[in-house]
This record gives sequence, structure tokens and C-alpha cells, in this order.
Amino acid sequence: MKSAYLDHASATPVRKKVFEAMLPYFSDQFANPSNVYDIGSKMRQVVEEQRGKVAELIGAKAGEIIFTSSGAEANNLAVKGVGLAHQKKGKHVIVSSIEHHSVLNSARFLERLDFEATFLPVDQHGTIDPERLVKAIRPETILVSIMHANNEIGTIEPITELAAICKEKGIIFHTDAVASIGNINVDVNALKVDLLSLSGASLGAPKGIGALYFRKNLRLMPLIHGGIQENGRRAGTENVPGIVGFGKAAELAKNEVSKMEPYVRKLRDRLVEGVFKQIEKVTYTGHPKKRLPGHASFCFEAIEGESLIFMLAQNGIYSNTGSACASKALKTSPVLGAIGIRADLAQGSTVFTINDNNTEEDIDYVLEKLPPIVDRLRFISPIWGKKVPETEEGVCT
Amino acid sequence: MKSAYLDHASATPVRKKVFEAMLPYFSDQFANPSNVYDIGSKMRQVVEEQRGKVAELIGAKAGEIIFTSSGAEANNLAVKGVGLAHQKKGKHVIVSSIEHHSVLNSARFLERLDFEATFLPVDQHGTIDPERLVKAIRPETILVSIMHANNEIGTIEPITELAAICKEKGIIFHTDAVASIGNINVDVNALKVDLLSLSGASLGAPKGIGALYFRKNLRLMPLIHGGIQENGRRAGTENVPGIVGFGKAAELAKNEVSKMEPYVRKLRDRLVEGVFKQIEKVTYTGHPKKRLPGHASFCFEAIEGESLIFMLAQNGIYSNTGSACASKALKTSPVLGAIGIRADLAQGSTVFTINDNNTEEDIDYVLEKLPPIVDRLRFISPIWGKKVPETEEGVCT
Repeated sequence: MKSAYLDHASATPVRKKVFEAMLPYFSDQFANPSNVYDIGSKMRQVVEEQRGKVAELIGAKAGEIIFTSSGAEANNLAVKGVGLAHQKKGKHVIVSSIEHHSVLNSARFLERLDFEATFLPVDQHGTIDPERLVKAIRPETILVSIMHANNEIGTIEPITELAAICKEKGIIFHTDAVASIGNINVDVNALKVDLLSLSGASLGAPKGIGALYFRKNLRLMPLIHGGIQENGRRAGTENVPGIVGFGKAAELAKNEVSKMEPYVRKLRDRLVEGVFKQIEKVTYTGHPKKRLPGHASFCFEAIEGESLIFMLAQNGIYSNTGSACASKALKTSPVLGAIGIRADLAQGSTVFTINDNNTEEDIDYVLEKLPPIVDRLRFISPIWGKKVPETEEGVCT
Repeated sequence: MKSAYLDHASATPVRKKVFEAMLPYFSDQFANPSNVYDIGSKMRQVVEEQRGKVAELIGAKAGEIIFTSSGAEANNLAVKGVGLAHQKKGKHVIVSSIEHHSVLNSARFLERLDFEATFLPVDQHGTIDPERLVKAIRPETILVSIMHANNEIGTIEPITELAAICKEKGIIFHTDAVASIGNINVDVNALKVDLLSLSGASLGAPKGIGALYFRKNLRLMPLIHGGIQENGRRAGTENVPGIVGFGKAAELAKNEVSKMEPYVRKLRDRLVEGVFKQIEKVTYTGHPKKRLPGHASFCFEAIEGESLIFMLAQNGIYSNTGSACASKALKTSPVLGAIGIRADLAQGSTVFTINDNNTEEDIDYVLEKLPPIVDRLRFISPIWGKKVPETEEGVCT
């Protein structure tokens, strides 16, 4: 059967060169990097080399990278770590209302420790208005966390501008770059952020490895306490094979992102144009221009997104309906609610995330299969063709 | 060059069968287990099967296992997670003074959140006296964490007895089984514990995967907040290859531990006898009998442990001087201080951890190389042959 995997934001295969780089570190070069003897120091050296490669991808220094087990852990470390280390200065944090759950729920955790958290609204494209941030800032604000790009609607936030506002006021700024890294250029100096979260899986490294960039000398309370790994900022024996995979993937991405971007954008545009040409009553969610190049997200009226996902999968086409982490937990997406999508329309959310493994054939295959599936689902839909009242209650939250 | 790796507590090669089991899950079966479509559900099923295997190794149910990125993370989740979830009942925790740093520093983290922590002393063998625990318990005690076996001195604690004391008083009991799992039988029903930490690396699974057993329905504050992975108890995309490796390693260990134990014990006893026969002024640290079968720990008088480690490594012999996590951080070991070893003697700490990859030849090779190295180091030692006063100040802390 023909197939087209267009869910790269959820998971992506480990790249061949990445896997080959990791191979020696499972059973052959297996020593603990904390050990002082030769085969241990060798592992320490290997880990530090990878740290340099990950740093280089984002324009940072090796000493500014903390390896974690995931982007989610990096987000927790950033939000809680800054909150707990700087609480004497103030106990107010600001995060956008469309952050990943690992940021949202870290902010809610701080609320349980008597912090106040502001969940900043976004406009209809999912963009944070810098003026809105300025108004939300209080004298006791110590941290602002706004994602670089949203995984569900693809919108890229004006991080440079938002971070500059915070810098001027002496507020620490964190951005979650898990959705953007590997898809667009991510440079901590251009963005002017203090902390930035990464995931290896975004780059074709294996699951189970992530990193947090932190501006040198920034104080952070560790999330995982224990030994002195990661300079005392994250305990636990280093996941050497994962780190090596991450380093290799970062090295590859460094040379490829700028070449990949136009290729992936062309495929995405082909998909979007085709969808709008062939299917009526579709909303393109997220920012129409300022969005990830390989990201296309739609809401199909009168359709249950999950049914669509299943029927596409029966044809070997893999897409998503909202965030993978939340997909079994929530009936409607808080991100779509935040951009003012009606609850009934939000049900029909479908997200395609394309990378350079995809081809024109993949897109054409989707455009062949998707329209008849939408037709069929609408044919059996109890609400298709009926007018839905646009009330406040209709907006999903 | 001949070699003998006897530092299995620090790191151990990924087992061949474990690596083979993991292989398909890097690039081939790579989907995100949270996704609802077929290749996602397949991954969910795979993860749940491994959960069952890890549970089975320790006599638990699959639903009682939370996968983490390491034993250190599991310890953090247990101590902080119980502390924060049960603080309305009381804000006092008890941990032994020879716990792994991930437990000790998690308890210290709770102290920063206005908890009180008691660091329970041990006797000269590193054993916790149950009577001492009884005396330390207060009405506001909510958690006791005492390790199953100590990684530095091999002592096995009387967990069943200690846990029973806590159970009777309605206090939650956690044990860190990272050092014991795979070396001796670990059964949560026999031990009667509420929580138990594991590391995949202890079983020949790769670095970067661990687990926390928690008794069903026990409330825990997550350490990593975010999506609903691990039943809402630990966010972040599941490290599927790592989990598969852990599952396979647990399955293998289940059938092998009881066979391995006498084999490893014989090798250990051969080493200990040989050392005492050939080398004078040696202290065998930890419990002489109630200790891990493959664990031999010594303090060689008038010797710098690190020099000994280096010289052994030059001969292809790998051993350790105290905990790997702390080995670069501390001049003297708090564990040896806790069992009353003089600071000067503690400097000469050397730990051999043997598993079933080792052979009699390995031991004989150590017994050939170790005595002349000890002689040589003593020959250049400024304190060899001099009387060291046994004062209070001399005890390392």
C-alpha cells in the first residue's frame, strides 16, 4: 500500500547517520562519564563534544547546554528552575495561553507554591501581541515563557521583540523551541532569549534526549537533584548514546535547515492549495504567513478529527489532531479555543507536519485520498449542512 | 593487554539480547505511543508490554510502574512527589544518611520548602537499626526513604522490618533499589514497600531509562509536568527504545538473578580472600555478610584511592572509589564517614562490583596486579607506616 507519513511533529524516525553515530556507545564504549579512569574520561570527552555541537546549532556556547531527557523536562527545568531560584525577587510568571502542556502545567505547579501565573491570550492567528505582554508585566514578574513556534497551529511568535521587552525590564525570558528546531533557524543571539528548550527527536535523534540552553551564569534550581552531572544542574548518569545521537543530529541540521526550508515550504503550500481547491468549508488555523514551513493545520467543518485521522491512516496517511501529548486527554484543543475557533469546528482539527523525507508524491497522495474521506465523513455527519450558532458557549476552552 | 572490568555498579554494557530487542524501535517502528492511529497504538501496546515485564521482575502490577529517565529521576519523583502530595498531613521526612545523592538532595530540596528532614545515622556496617527509625518517627512524619543496598559499601538494609514499622504507623516507605536490582531478588511484596526506584542500566539496559514502582492509588506530585503520559504521573514522549531495552533486560534478569547470585558471590569471595591474604592493613567496608553478592569494598591504609584506580586502569582493571556521581565532587566519601571510617583511611577507598560477565581469570588478574600496585603506592606515601591519631576530627563527614 502507498503511504505518506506527515506527522513529523509527533515523532520522526532516527536518521541513519545519527543511529550509526550512536551504535558504539551501547555495548562497546559504555563507561560512565563520571569515572576518572581512561575509558570514563573518554566518555566525558564524547559528551562534551556533543554539547558543543548542540550549542553550535543554536549559536550558544557548550557550557550553556544542559542535557535533559526530553523537551518536556527542559520546559519544566526552565519554568520551575527559574521560578524557584529567583522567587525572592518576585513570585509572578507569565506564559502564553497556547504553550505546550509542560510549560502550562509547570506554571500551574508554581501557582501551588504561592506564585501567581498569567496566561497571556493570543490573537486569532495565535500570535502574542507585544503590547499585551507589556501590560501583563508587574514589578514582581520574574519569568516570561513564550514558545518559539506552536506545534498545533504552526504560528511563529515574535520572540526577538518579546524577549527585548523582558530584557529591558530585567525579566528572564524562556522560549520552547521544540517545534521550531530543525524546521527554521534557531539562534539564541538573534532571539535574545535567556533560556531555550530543545528536543533531540525534533532533529531525527532518538526519543529520550532533550536539552535546555541557559544564558551563562543564570541561576536555576535543578529539577532532578543528585550527583554533579551537567555541572550540578541535572543529576543522573548521562544518556551517552542519546547525547551522541543528539550531537550528530544537531551537526547535520546545522548544514541542512536553510536548504530544507524552501523544499518543505513548497510541499506544504502544495498541500494547502490543493485542500482549498478541492474541499469546501475549511479553516486554515494559525498564522497564514508567519508559520513553520512544513506545518499545515486545518479545521474541517462538521467532521470529527479523530475519525479523519483513522480513515487517513487506513490509507497509510499519518496526520494528527492537535498535540500528541494531549490527544487522548482532551476532546477539544485549548490552543484552538485560544484563537477563537468554535468548539464544533475545533473537533475537525487536522495537522500535517512535513519534513524533507516527504515528497510531492506524498502530498499528491494526500490530495487524492483526503477529499473523498472528508465527503464521506460529512455524509454521515449529523451537523453537516446545518447552521451552527456562533455563541460564546460555542467557543472551546 | 589483559583486562578486567569490575565497575558494573557505575556502568555496564548493554546486553546483546537487549540491544537486539531495541533495534527496531529507532528508525523503523518510531511512532509516538500517544497517537491514536494504528502505528501509534502499536507503540502504546509495546510500551505497556514492557511495563508488565518490569513489574513482573519485582512482583508488581504493570499499572504500578512509572517509567523515568534514570534511577536518580525515580528517587526525585518518590521523595519530592510524596512530600509535595502529602504535605497537608505533615512536613517531616526521614532518609538514611548513606542514601544516594538523588535521595539526600531531594530531601534537602524539601527542607527549602519548609519541610524538616532527618538524616538517620547507620552503624559501623552501614546498617539502619530499626529501633533508631522508631525513635526518629514523629507524628508529622510522612515519608521514610531507605535504600535497599548501598552502592558504595554493598550493605543490604533490613527493608522488610523498616517498612513494616512505617506501615504500622501509616507512613509511606520508599526504597532505592538501583544498586540491588539484578544482583539480588527484589520483590515489593516481600519488602512491603510503597515505592521502589529502579534503573535500567543496573540490568544491562541502556543509560537513560529508569522506573519508579508505586503502590496502586498512592498519590504523587509529578516531577515532570505536561502531557498525560505515564497516567499523568510523568510527562514527555516515552523513550520507546529505552523502555523496550528495560523490558527485555527485566525479562532476562527474572530468570537469571537466582542463578547468577552464587556464581558472583564465589568470585567476590575469591577476591576478598585474596586481598586479605596478600595485602596488610586493609579494611573491608560495609556489612561482612549482609551485602550484595558481587560487591567488595576496601579501604587500603595510606593510599590515595584515585591513584590506585588510575594505576589499576593502566593495567586494564576498572574499579571505583566511592559513588561515580560524586567521584569528582568530593575528596572524601560521606558514606564512609557515616560508618566511622577515619578520613585518611577513607581516602584509600576502592570498590569492585562484579557481575556474571566476570570470570575467575578476572579475579586472579586483579590479585596479580593489585598487591604490587598497593606496595608501590605505599612506598611513595608520606603517611605509610606512621601512626595516625584516632580523633573525632579524623572521621570524615
